[in-house]
Amino acid sequence: MTEEEPRGYECSPWELRWRGMDVDALQRTESAFAVSNGHIGLRGTLEEAEPRGLPGTYLNGFYEQHELPYAEAGYGYPEEGQTVVNVTDGKIIRLLVEDEPLDMRYGAATAHDRVLDFRKGTLSRTTEWSSPTGRRVRVRTERLVSFTQRAIAAIRYEVEPLDEDLQLVVQSDLLANEPIESDTSDPRVAAALNSPLVGEFHRASDYNAVLVHQTRRSGLRMAAAMDHKIEVDDGIRARIHSEEDLARLTVAVDVPKGGRLRITKFLAYGWSAQRSVPALRSQVEAALAGARQTGWKGLITEQRAFLDDYWATSDIEIDGDPELQQAVRFALFHLLQAGARGESRAIAGKGLTGPGYDGHAFWDTESFVLPVLTYTIPDAARDALRWRHSTMDKARERAHQLGLRGAAFPWRSINGAECSAYWPAGTAAFHVSADIADAVLRYLNATGDEEFERDYGTELLLETARLWASLGHHDRHGDFRIDGVTGPDEYSAVADNNVYTNLMARRNLLAAAESCERHPDVAAHFGVDTVELDSWRAAAAAMYLPYDPELGVHPQSEGFLDHDEWDYENTDLAHYPLLLHFPYFDLYRKQVVKQADLVLALHLCGDSFSPEEKARDFAYYEARTVRDSSLSAGTQAVVAAEVGHLDLAYDYLAEAALTDLHDVHNNVRNGLHMASLAGAWQGAVAGFGGLRDHGGTLAFAPRLPAQLDRITFRLMFRGTRFQVEIDRDQATYHVLDGDPLEVLHHGERITVAAEPQRFAIPKIDAGEPPVQPPGRAPMRRDSEKLRQYAEPANPISEVYSD
Amino acid sequence: MTEEEPRGYECSPWELRWRGMDVDALQRTESAFAVSNGHIGLRGTLEEAEPRGLPGTYLNGFYEQHELPYAEAGYGYPEEGQTVVNVTDGKIIRLLVEDEPLDMRYGAATAHDRVLDFRKGTLSRTTEWSSPTGRRVRVRTERLVSFTQRAIAAIRYEVEPLDEDLQLVVQSDLLANEPIESDTSDPRVAAALNSPLVGEFHRASDYNAVLVHQTRRSGLRMAAAMDHKIEVDDGIRARIHSEEDLARLTVAVDVPKGGRLRITKFLAYGWSAQRSVPALRSQVEAALAGARQTGWKGLITEQRAFLDDYWATSDIEIDGDPELQQAVRFALFHLLQAGARGESRAIAGKGLTGPGYDGHAFWDTESFVLPVLTYTIPDAARDALRWRHSTMDKARERAHQLGLRGAAFPWRSINGAECSAYWPAGTAAFHVSADIADAVLRYLNATGDEEFERDYGTELLLETARLWASLGHHDRHGDFRIDGVTGPDEYSAVADNNVYTNLMARRNLLAAAESCERHPDVAAHFGVDTVELDSWRAAAAAMYLPYDPELGVHPQSEGFLDHDEWDYENTDLAHYPLLLHFPYFDLYRKQVVKQADLVLALHLCGDSFSPEEKARDFAYYEARTVRDSSLSAGTQAVVAAEVGHLDLAYDYLAEAALTDLHDVHNNVRNGLHMASLAGAWQGAVAGFGGLRDHGGTLAFAPRLPAQLDRITFRLMFRGTRFQVEIDRDQATYHVLDGDPLEVLHHGERITVAAEPQRFAIPKIDAGEPPVQPPGRAPMRRDSEKLRQYAEPANPISEVYSD
Repeated sequence: MTEEEPRGYECSPWELRWRGMDVDALQRTESAFAVSNGHIGLRGTLEEAEPRGLPGTYLNGFYEQHELPYAEAGYGYPEEGQTVVNVTDGKIIRLLVEDEPLDMRYGAATAHDRVLDFRKGTLSRTTEWSSPTGRRVRVRTERLVSFTQRAIAAIRYEVEPLDEDLQLVVQSDLLANEPIESDTSDPRVAAALNSPLVGEFHRASDYNAVLVHQTRRSGLRMAAAMDHKIEVDDGIRARIHSEEDLARLTVAVDVPKGGRLRITKFLAYGWSAQRSVPALRSQVEAALAGARQTGWKGLITEQRAFLDDYWATSDIEIDGDPELQQAVRFALFHLLQAGARGESRAIAGKGLTGPGYDGHAFWDTESFVLPVLTYTIPDAARDALRWRHSTMDKARERAHQLGLRGAAFPWRSINGAECSAYWPAGTAAFHVSADIADAVLRYLNATGDEEFERDYGTELLLETARLWASLGHHDRHGDFRIDGVTGPDEYSAVADNNVYTNLMARRNLLAAAESCERHPDVAAHFGVDTVELDSWRAAAAAMYLPYDPELGVHPQSEGFLDHDEWDYENTDLAHYPLLLHFPYFDLYRKQVVKQADLVLALHLCGDSFSPEEKARDFAYYEARTVRDSSLSAGTQAVVAAEVGHLDLAYDYLAEAALTDLHDVHNNVRNGLHMASLAGAWQGAVAGFGGLRDHGGTLAFAPRLPAQLDRITFRLMFRGTRFQVEIDRDQATYHVLDGDPLEVLHHGERITVAAEPQRFAIPKIDAGEPPVQPPGRAPMRRDSEKLRQYAEPANPISEVYSD
Repeated sequence: MTEEEPRGYECSPWELRWRGMDVDALQRTESAFAVSNGHIGLRGTLEEAEPRGLPGTYLNGFYEQHELPYAEAGYGYPEEGQTVVNVTDGKIIRLLVEDEPLDMRYGAATAHDRVLDFRKGTLSRTTEWSSPTGRRVRVRTERLVSFTQRAIAAIRYEVEPLDEDLQLVVQSDLLANEPIESDTSDPRVAAALNSPLVGEFHRASDYNAVLVHQTRRSGLRMAAAMDHKIEVDDGIRARIHSEEDLARLTVAVDVPKGGRLRITKFLAYGWSAQRSVPALRSQVEAALAGARQTGWKGLITEQRAFLDDYWATSDIEIDGDPELQQAVRFALFHLLQAGARGESRAIAGKGLTGPGYDGHAFWDTESFVLPVLTYTIPDAARDALRWRHSTMDKARERAHQLGLRGAAFPWRSINGAECSAYWPAGTAAFHVSADIADAVLRYLNATGDEEFERDYGTELLLETARLWASLGHHDRHGDFRIDGVTGPDEYSAVADNNVYTNLMARRNLLAAAESCERHPDVAAHFGVDTVELDSWRAAAAAMYLPYDPELGVHPQSEGFLDHDEWDYENTDLAHYPLLLHFPYFDLYRKQVVKQADLVLALHLCGDSFSPEEKARDFAYYEARTVRDSSLSAGTQAVVAAEVGHLDLAYDYLAEAALTDLHDVHNNVRNGLHMASLAGAWQGAVAGFGGLRDHGGTLAFAPRLPAQLDRITFRLMFRGTRFQVEIDRDQATYHVLDGDPLEVLHHGERITVAAEPQRFAIPKIDAGEPPVQPPGRAPMRRDSEKLRQYAEPANPISEVYSD
């Protein structure tokens, strides 16, 4: 018997599969194999808990606090940080085979196979394991976090002796305060993460148990409960017990060769900042009762139905690059997992797939993730915006503390309070508030959800408009300037008149004025009068946008074009990302761009630039963008496609889509990059589809790169589900269900209806593609090689089925 | 018997006196009454150690290290901080009067009087104290830190029973690891300061003892030793003992009424990063032996002679404002104390008067303190520059770490390594390196010290020039720009082309080129070739200096004039200093100036501005300078005087001179502000004297404000000691000793010789004085009131005399 060689992810259109056991790869596969519904997240750890990269069970919004240290403090610096907590782990099911614990580091795995199924919404595993003394079992597991029952996760666990009768002992745990390794060098954060939970209640009886804990400092309370269904031919001995940090069901059974033991584990989670121990306990026990009634099959069926509905609205088909096809669906699946059932909690930068960024949410949510959700599962976009709204008081308080009006949303946070300890890249990055306003505007435009506008949207728009009105000023020439802010590019900071920020602020101001006029009662409630409305419009009309007529280029911020060039030629490629090898002061004062900033303005505020300006600006910034951030490739794909560099757009799209699967930034172990996954959608839909939504009417400008044969994508707009198919010379539009829809095709107004209609794609000659800094161009995709790769290597059919 | 009422400092031309006991005022008087020689500093605590504000015994350069914490770290952030240590306290002499400890909080002080004598160089005290049970003694003490014997301090302690025979017990201590209260909220700094010293050796015999300690982390070793001479009519019982942190001589004696006990305590201190325990012990014991041989009277005589020589070169007489007269001499005395015997150690921002700024040295030294020392005690200026030179390797290393060439001197440090944990106001404030170069240039010009230039000066100039050449760049129009730096004004940061920085860098580049040509061997040793020299000159010639022709004003940095105005009208006066009530981001992006920046350029680089530009620039920045820093009033005095606003200059001079005596910034408890004390000299000599030295030839432009009758000051230049007397309509110059000297008087070339010569002072009509932000004008000095104040209130003649 030989170990199977691990070969990395296999290519398949609707699933992510990894065959063979590779202990070193566990951390990153755990992130990719995470299952989540936006409320509960379970990293893809093995059921037996070890070997492992990093255990992780997360509840959206559940965090611990810790002091933020400053060697030199300053007024308005946040004093408390927040860190996502690894909560009580219910994924653990350990197995003893005749007294030998199943551990993939010992004995031999003759087969080992893990599959994340994008349509079924489950992670399944098949392992054939031979113990060190040669006893062989097959273990099949499948787990899900339910999209339909928000508090519920479930695991089916099945063991078969392969060669002989075996005594099996299974231990199914709820384990709190798992010891974990932490990357942090800050002893306060490490302390906060070390045993963060204080036991408050535990109970076990029959096959079920519950644990209730509270965090030490943040005072949040959580409950985890489990119940089990055990199926086996013969009689079993089962015992359950609980203690403060552990509840364990132990099942011992003799299983004959050919027989099997099957355990279905139902898990329920709940947390609250306010509810009592009995209330929270009741909540998870009730959820468990519901799940048991639905049963495993029921949960599987509901899950599939939920996903069928999602794919019907969101799927993107890519012909000609199977790996990209898989990656784009992987992206859409994980975006759904991050956002589906967040329900007024944040969508974190890593979703619920890992502890990266301390579990904080950033502008990534509104600027990258929400455009996807808005057009695919708009209720999730609405819920994410409701989370922002729920933090409004904190944002108003923060604005007040900073001497501003309106609402200043945090750069990074879990509960809505600013947690950024480095203000030049935190507080100064005020654009996050305009990004939120833009997401509101996009959502309203895409759904016509008047109730949301009245209850949440107008307030979000007007309070952010107030921020801009107080943050900027009219200078002595009447121009409205916004000075001393940080734009999206984190290799510049605290500069005047960042073009992206000013354009987004202008949109914010105008949108707020319009929304206030649509909802005068709301405006009146918040004290907006016509003087204030006029001041917003005046600021918007006078918004200053620096431009260099000599170069014919927009400076990212004022003065940027006068700065020294980075010495790209002499920068060691091993010294990327630059921020780990060069000081901020040097990055900030040179023409080096970490991530799309002016180029993001070209995308999101494209109506403010002529096509010629876009081409010149894009070429200028391409030569200076090092893409040390995962928030860039998608945007560069979009603008490259618009200005006609389709090959380059294709390379950028692939990079965005494969960022996590290829571990481009070498940090997937800490979680997936939600914004980069969203960038895959952006690259396909806004890039090759040319989707733009800044005019109110949806606009498309489809184009196909030479390497692909076809791209088809689906969207939802104002209740209409429709499809766009891009072929070499033409695009085909049709409504899948709902009313006909007016859109633009390459600037021409067309009506999309149930009957597919074809429109020609105009040629574009963009000339020579722009150059990137040496070594920083995206990897060129070799289409011939890709086509070979299309033949899946050794397909495995033995996927677990009930 | 009634307690004497404390009345604050009394006005007297050559001393600082405080009468009466005021426990609450102890902290600030301890700073003002500190005695120091630049190597050893003793705060003015009472001999009996309590009550006290803050004990403080400092050795220049002796510090403890601690980790600098960052909630979000960055490349190049300093990892270790340094903090001045309160070393073994030898000032303590406790007294028991018939078993009752002398404690000024109990019993009654019928007389209490402390005097810092600027000519004698001692702090003396006379206390008549009645114990709670009515026993009365007179205690007279006097202490000095010797200017002539660098390692030595001495205290004379005398007790007389006033009404009856008394048993007296005196305990004279060396006490290490005194518990002190710390302002810091950082537990790491607090930990570093709590018992920082580890005992290594102690010994006591006869009347002498020695303690040797080492710091825990920085590994510096120090020794303190004491010896005593006891004079009493009758027999004594004396006992000495030592333990790790304490050595104590106990003297018990019966003193009859009319008799007295007199103890002379000699103290010696030494420290080293390298010397062993026996070596350091020998060093202090040898120093003690020398001091004992010199004896108390000898030390007093040497001290007086040293000071006579100093005053002969440095004294400033001010007729018409006795309080200002006193304050200016107080300033000159403390500047001497900070710099006299530093000998290749830093001159800290607080000198050795308190633990403020962690004992760090800043640009304050070169830009404010050294100009005074250069013209009054040039050897001290030389030694301070040698300290900078001794840190050259650290500065080169820092430049290399930052990706720059040459030497980047630290923003704040004790040992030469950067300790600033906030880079926008630390690392980015590169001007410190040009300030050092300017101080070198000034010293060379004032002394013609060719040996210093060859051994230290050229290297300092060329390595700082290299910094500028690598920090700036020629833009596409050929201009040489220095982007992303912080100028002197700490309410702006990380801006492009700070005018002060660019002008100082230009001077640095040119001076380095000239010095390298004078010393081609040195230049060759450091690899400077003609290509590099040419590049420095090219950078200097193309140095970009932003100017706004519309306003006729220089922006402090590029873009400054377009920024929003601060809302001074609506800023609560209780919200100054602004940095405690407003976030940096808001201060940075508005036209609010903490301290002279462009105005400092008007002073130090006045040859780059026309008189009209100076007047307009000064008026513009006056309206926007809030003077939240003690580094501003002196400079504002200088430029106000130059542009002809003499009343305003007078007010600013008074503010600078009285900053510490009036505790303007409410933090004198942490130490005196050396730069502000230097500002007093600047205001008088560069302000009303009009001294400028940027052209090589000394220039004067004397003018007297209406409130004063006369100002006379003395200077040393190239070995010539001379005097300038400013009267209402004329100025009188004459050489005190040395060769005749060519200088400029209001632009006219004159020769100063032994024979006093008078020159008319041209009239100036500056028009209306500029306005300051509401509530931020300097306090107007009421000259009538001042003349009344000239009569000293209840002069005390009972000063201790030997």
